[in-house]
Amino acid sequence: MSGYSPTLEALIEKFRSLPGIGSKTAVRLAFHMLNSSADYVKEFAECILEAKIKTTTCKICQNLSDTDICSICDDLTRDHGLICVVENAKDIATFERVKEYRGVYHVLHGAISPMDGINPEDIRIKELIARVTGEDVKVHEVILATSSNVEGEATAAYIAHLVKPFGVLTSRLAYGIPVGGELEYADSVTLFKALEGRREM
Amino acid sequence: MSGYSPTLEALIEKFRSLPGIGSKTAVRLAFHMLNSSADYVKEFAECILEAKIKTTTCKICQNLSDTDICSICDDLTRDHGLICVVENAKDIATFERVKEYRGVYHVLHGAISPMDGINPEDIRIKELIARVTGEDVKVHEVILATSSNVEGEATAAYIAHLVKPFGVLTSRLAYGIPVGGELEYADSVTLFKALEGRREM
Repeated sequence: MSGYSPTLEALIEKFRSLPGIGSKTAVRLAFHMLNSSADYVKEFAECILEAKIKTTTCKICQNLSDTDICSICDDLTRDHGLICVVENAKDIATFERVKEYRGVYHVLHGAISPMDGINPEDIRIKELIARVTGEDVKVHEVILATSSNVEGEATAAYIAHLVKPFGVLTSRLAYGIPVGGELEYADSVTLFKALEGRREM
Repeated sequence: MSGYSPTLEALIEKFRSLPGIGSKTAVRLAFHMLNSSADYVKEFAECILEAKIKTTTCKICQNLSDTDICSICDDLTRDHGLICVVENAKDIATFERVKEYRGVYHVLHGAISPMDGINPEDIRIKELIARVTGEDVKVHEVILATSSNVEGEATAAYIAHLVKPFGVLTSRLAYGIPVGGELEYADSVTLFKALEGRREM
């Protein structure tokens, strides 16, 4: 017996079900809720529900959005012919932090992984092909920014194979030593990729 | 611009408001919610609300409870004359993990701290005195298990001063080197307390 009431125990268990939240953090969060004002707790619960109900995917790029067309696809100052393909919606935020990128995105919502039963038709590849072959915008380049693991590489290769016949340039992010990274900490695969991609200076 | 929709941004912000949750964890938790089933999210939100609404404090020991009398105060196999005084409800769980303790508790819900405007009347001291002076149970010992910081020590001293005149034994937890702790990592205050409390062997 823990000394917690059943309701409190249930709340701690709920927090513990969240990814990366251990027992001690779950207890801390549950007590935080009980020690907060009823208004705060109500607002918190409503915020979670509202986000879940309101959030849909953008009809064009499949990014998570409150509206049919997300704010990025709706931005006419961006280059809609340059599509950066990512696995997950949160990857977009990573790119947006690099202010230089002025193209648009396409979210696959996963990567091809036959081992996990995820086939090409299970992720949003057909929506990407529809954009490339569509009449609305002339797509000139597709940047394949899927992960550098086996699934990400396979997905990138699969998409490149489908897109190239339409005369669209396909590119992949450069691999190499991170800027500011020390050579001695680079793993050998990264170092191999850095050597392979070396440039004349 | 982060590339997140306003609703998602609001959800991330809500998670970031939790203690010990940083930006990256907040993003991870928000995406976890959006990627979970609607049922899971609904249940999660309801669990938070329910815990906040249902949880009250035990009429006897002031522990958080779903019922008027908590399960510990309701347990007749325990020694109701032995009261362990703690600052917070979560400290009870720490004691309950030590299976040896068979007394009951009293939760102060804070410690005396004039600097923060917390005076003796702001925490549940009068409820403790009522228990000690009450007719229902003959209290024979009060263990002062408040923190070993300035506020905790002051609170313990204040309560001891009030309780002693009623002929009740008051005790304080022992300080010293943690079991299994290496001497070289002990801070000097702990070491001083360990020396002071040394026992003949």
